[in-house]
Amino acid sequence: MLERIDHVGIACHDLAATIARYESIFGLSVASREIHEDQGVREAMLRLEGEAGGPGGASWIQLLEALGPDTPVGRFLARRGEGIHHIGYRVTNITAALGAIGARGVRLIDERPRHGSMGASIAFLHPADLGGVLTELVQPPGR
Amino acid sequence: MLERIDHVGIACHDLAATIARYESIFGLSVASREIHEDQGVREAMLRLEGEAGGPGGASWIQLLEALGPDTPVGRFLARRGEGIHHIGYRVTNITAALGAIGARGVRLIDERPRHGSMGASIAFLHPADLGGVLTELVQPPGR
Repeated sequence: MLERIDHVGIACHDLAATIARYESIFGLSVASREIHEDQGVREAMLRLEGEAGGPGGASWIQLLEALGPDTPVGRFLARRGEGIHHIGYRVTNITAALGAIGARGVRLIDERPRHGSMGASIAFLHPADLGGVLTELVQPPGR
Repeated sequence: MLERIDHVGIACHDLAATIARYESIFGLSVASREIHEDQGVREAMLRLEGEAGGPGGASWIQLLEALGPDTPVGRFLARRGEGIHHIGYRVTNITAALGAIGARGVRLIDERPRHGSMGASIAFLHPADLGGVLTELVQPPGR
């Protein structure tokens, strides 16, 4: 069901400064910048090198800045400070995966897939049923 | 430098119960169980499906239980509760990567690579220089 780790989401206070840090330390660069008003977040996706031409494509670091204090990432930052916010796993069929996971008793934050970064379909699972881990399913576009 | 996300490390109170949860919810199974006395941790590696035959191999979920309260994972659990503990990135040459990252001013928890899970060479970078993210470099065996 879970193909691989798609990305890790990292919450930060200052997106521009954190991008600069990741660029300078690890030689990464930003592939996509997006604002998701519905999630209250401004984000940047940094592409890891991956295996060029491989079927699975790259994995990603997603840097997240809150659009305000009363947003999920804003509350996370107030409560826990900067750090890893969630983990995203790639799936082939997100609707099927959500159905199977829901049937096993995991609460779904998103009952249906919605639009995520870079055209993907995404859905979040509740951390209370997954040992405190906010977990995202990601189906890339065109699959 | 960073090829891809190798694994995410998840701290839990009860390793057996958390393994059972990941197995039943996601259909994963344990590929390796190890105890690292030097790190004060008992762990299990759960293999994601990956792309069979692909050059990069699988990515992993690493479940971590503390061997006691006065260990890094024990202190993490006391302070923050269960959840994502660290992120591990795969590198081709860990010695070269450590040298480059240290030269850019990031404090190294491990100045030299040491033995990690499943025969890998690993080294941790200090979260204070990486936006609160405990970051691990992983060079798989045989590379």
